[in-house]
Amino acid sequence: MTALEIEPLAAAAFAPFGEVIEIAGAEAREINQGTTTRFHDLCRIDVSASGGRALLSLFRADGRPSPIVIELLERHPLGSQAFFPVSNADWLVVVATGAADDASRPDLAALRCFRARGDQGVNYARGVWHHPVLVLAPRQDFLVVDRGGPDGEDASANLDEVWFSDQPRTIQI
Amino acid sequence: MTALEIEPLAAAAFAPFGEVIEIAGAEAREINQGTTTRFHDLCRIDVSASGGRALLSLFRADGRPSPIVIELLERHPLGSQAFFPVSNADWLVVVATGAADDASRPDLAALRCFRARGDQGVNYARGVWHHPVLVLAPRQDFLVVDRGGPDGEDASANLDEVWFSDQPRTIQI
Repeated sequence: MTALEIEPLAAAAFAPFGEVIEIAGAEAREINQGTTTRFHDLCRIDVSASGGRALLSLFRADGRPSPIVIELLERHPLGSQAFFPVSNADWLVVVATGAADDASRPDLAALRCFRARGDQGVNYARGVWHHPVLVLAPRQDFLVVDRGGPDGEDASANLDEVWFSDQPRTIQI
Repeated sequence: MTALEIEPLAAAAFAPFGEVIEIAGAEAREINQGTTTRFHDLCRIDVSASGGRALLSLFRADGRPSPIVIELLERHPLGSQAFFPVSNADWLVVVATGAADDASRPDLAALRCFRARGDQGVNYARGVWHHPVLVLAPRQDFLVVDRGGPDGEDASANLDEVWFSDQPRTIQI
């Protein structure tokens, strides 16, 4: 099985997939009589398609055995999805661009794996292929901002999944 | 100066002002092949008035000398504002209902002070009077979801402030 190279998460490298949510490089506004700095508008919350609205949820993710096996990607055609850790530990982000010859599939040759610091989040742009959340700690919680639809929270219209269990990748920690 | 009573933050007590963002009591959905629990849709992100959209920002708040002097409240007439700490330390939430005889003013006799745990956030409902973020640690960061307007991010239409320096309250830590 092919092991993915692990890259440090950085805004420029992640730009094809969305935004890195972090203080570094952000617009800083002094507010609240100088007691608070607002690092303003860190990503594009893109959830209004087809009557959507922003949801705020908490995700509690458990670690997986090493090597981590990557055999699945998903995407949300109707909305962005932002993750930010609420405990400070490194975590992993796996993404891919779409296949040039088939827009309904990711380009598995273009899989990327980023190691995020515990003070970095990501916002997957609408339609970007990504792996479900991957943590390195035994357990880690995230604040998540994504899209809720008008149809009783049925997420099926906003989820595409592709399995490639016959050609898995691995991540060696 | 009158010292405010400090109450533990709990959903029922905070209900007149918005929602407590926490795992306890939330709808739990198992996702990602059983590796993740999604605590779903924890508050009402109410930001679409007057062409608004959801913003995701980070706030870095510095502690204040004790006793903390409360002489100001603010409200956002066009949108809700959610805070969730990204480091696990207790913090404070000060809110008030509107005055019965003057909707443009808070009822200072109804000021409430809640002590939030580090794994609790709050979402101030649209138009709820609240104090700017108050931390007990020397410094604490928060993820914030609030409203951005269509008019070049000018927040003035979405901010009312009332000062009462002649009749301040205090918080004894």
